[in-house]
Amino acid sequence: MWEVAEELNAMLVFAEHRYYGESLPFGNKSFTDSKHLNYLTSEQALADFAILIQHIRKTIPGAQNTPVIAIGGSYGGMLAAWLRMKYPHVVDGALAASAPIWQFQDLVPCSVFNRIVTNDFKKSGKGCSESIRNSWEAIKRVSSTGEGLQWLSSAFHLCSPLKSSQDAAALKAWLSETWVNLAMVNYPYKADFLQPLPAWPIQVVCKFLKDPSLSDKLLLQNIFQAVNIYYNYSGVASCLNISHTATKNLGEVGWYYQACTEMVMPMCTDGVNDMFEPQKWDFQAFSEECFKLWGVRPRPSWITSVYGGKNISSHSNIIFSNGRLDPWSGGGVTQNITNSLVAIVIPEGAHHLDLRSSNPCDPKSVRQARALEVHYMKQWIEKARQRH
Amino acid sequence: MWEVAEELNAMLVFAEHRYYGESLPFGNKSFTDSKHLNYLTSEQALADFAILIQHIRKTIPGAQNTPVIAIGGSYGGMLAAWLRMKYPHVVDGALAASAPIWQFQDLVPCSVFNRIVTNDFKKSGKGCSESIRNSWEAIKRVSSTGEGLQWLSSAFHLCSPLKSSQDAAALKAWLSETWVNLAMVNYPYKADFLQPLPAWPIQVVCKFLKDPSLSDKLLLQNIFQAVNIYYNYSGVASCLNISHTATKNLGEVGWYYQACTEMVMPMCTDGVNDMFEPQKWDFQAFSEECFKLWGVRPRPSWITSVYGGKNISSHSNIIFSNGRLDPWSGGGVTQNITNSLVAIVIPEGAHHLDLRSSNPCDPKSVRQARALEVHYMKQWIEKARQRH
Repeated sequence: MWEVAEELNAMLVFAEHRYYGESLPFGNKSFTDSKHLNYLTSEQALADFAILIQHIRKTIPGAQNTPVIAIGGSYGGMLAAWLRMKYPHVVDGALAASAPIWQFQDLVPCSVFNRIVTNDFKKSGKGCSESIRNSWEAIKRVSSTGEGLQWLSSAFHLCSPLKSSQDAAALKAWLSETWVNLAMVNYPYKADFLQPLPAWPIQVVCKFLKDPSLSDKLLLQNIFQAVNIYYNYSGVASCLNISHTATKNLGEVGWYYQACTEMVMPMCTDGVNDMFEPQKWDFQAFSEECFKLWGVRPRPSWITSVYGGKNISSHSNIIFSNGRLDPWSGGGVTQNITNSLVAIVIPEGAHHLDLRSSNPCDPKSVRQARALEVHYMKQWIEKARQRH
Repeated sequence: MWEVAEELNAMLVFAEHRYYGESLPFGNKSFTDSKHLNYLTSEQALADFAILIQHIRKTIPGAQNTPVIAIGGSYGGMLAAWLRMKYPHVVDGALAASAPIWQFQDLVPCSVFNRIVTNDFKKSGKGCSESIRNSWEAIKRVSSTGEGLQWLSSAFHLCSPLKSSQDAAALKAWLSETWVNLAMVNYPYKADFLQPLPAWPIQVVCKFLKDPSLSDKLLLQNIFQAVNIYYNYSGVASCLNISHTATKNLGEVGWYYQACTEMVMPMCTDGVNDMFEPQKWDFQAFSEECFKLWGVRPRPSWITSVYGGKNISSHSNIIFSNGRLDPWSGGGVTQNITNSLVAIVIPEGAHHLDLRSSNPCDPKSVRQARALEVHYMKQWIEKARQRH
């Protein structure tokens, strides 16, 4: 964005989503209960952005008739697309990078996300995804005794030792999330999005996971080496904390509330077509958890009701870009819908790689994607200028 | 609609707007305070309609993929247009009849509404609008004495006698509203929309108002004869009640709350280009009144922020129909915006005449309007069918 803004002589405005960062409508009471969280919805956020843009138009000299393009990645990409859909009088177009607008009820199979994660590992080293698939049973077997739990705690350099089979389940959940995060940030160069990581981190990880047929303890020692790349690439961590993953700082509480109300994204695994422990999508259990936490029930069809699901062809001027390596691409728009609702797929791209700064290690596909994105933006800008 | 539904083999669904009719979210507490009224917004109503349509699609055999067209008149026409704008995945098109979507801050002159009313009276009889214009000063003069107030009360057959200059102001407001309502229902045949009325009621009214140069009392006696057409065409009223106008039953409390929050429609008169007493649009006074009544302040730019004001060209499949006699046409869309955002103007039409049943007295213009409306609907339906 910084580079393109200069090229287009544009102003960059970063709008902070309500309930994230410092934008807390009720200060430190914002997350206390559902009454205070009640104003945290994507619709309210979109209205904020629309009002902000209109305010900027009014108050900044020269901005009055200037074209505006919404840009965002991930949830921000969904918001960018939805902003164009709901407020086409406010933004002239949107770049929705890695925006899984279809990762909702009945729009894509709940398995697609974890299959893409698995594929990333499968392609990054022989034996890699199989090693991970085999690790779940290995953990189950080892954790069945007290001595085994102790061994696991020590092998994984855990800050708090595992004490029960529940703790072992937490270890597995933490490992799963780690593999997912690695798939998201599998960038072609050293980067620090969720964690500081080497170039193509999954390839680095997979170097430790070549032999899925090892005995349980040898396999799990390798698994540790692998996750240690993710959590301790800098080499300064003295122990690993399975209650923390790198995504914790991305406004987790607010996001979890949103997931418990409108942003219900079904996920599942089968252990056959993916490398994870089989787990069906259990809406009931999810709903119960939400009710326990906030006294709210998720509305799984709401997002589709409001934003149209697959039936969005009457909208215009949205680029949906997706990296093929990014598990979120499974819920993204990867085929053109109309000639102004266009998809750009980046075969070597992870989670919104195209929004990152140019890098000498960028694959050709992402350079081309960025060029095409700028091409569309220029078209929209020109058209908007003609109207004024 | 009944006739066209049969022609198109369509189901008609009438959705009741929340807080109107029997749709009271908090029963008889719904209007008690702004806390209970807080859910009364056009956005919420649109969401209700979207969810209702999706529910119908799901539950009624054969409805699943059926095209849907939103139809409405007046505020309902605005909602029809906005429903298509915000939920194009739910409705394939909209007929927005007499929908003043531009009767909001800075979009049209605040004077346009009352100029159209005046024009209707000017065209309906010589001396007519001048008689009404002269009546205000006549009332002022006559009401300046106690005897005059008594005379007025008797001359206008008022149920409660006028006792002060404030009461005289109420009489004038009641008369103004009567002229406005007559302009809205100036239909070419006997009808009973706001009140039972003869064909072309303004012409009938104007028969009493041919001489604007009469003395005050003679002029005001004629004014009484004129309004008596509106309030007592059936001849059964024993007295007239200036605290009641015919619009009272159209969900007045709810509408007034909406006017005090988002539906802020600036109106003004100058007494020169219109026949009313000069009155500037006074937002501050209006805002104070709203604050006194509900503790809320109106947001005059909100509707434009949300629905786009004049900048709506990226939407599609909306017919804006307006009768040229209808004062609301001043805030309506009366010129094509694109080839799928089209305007239909009915020179001889009052408030949403096109939505009324066919009548032998219908002018050719409204017959043509209806035919064109059906033509567009068929286009939209065909296009929607092709998508499924």
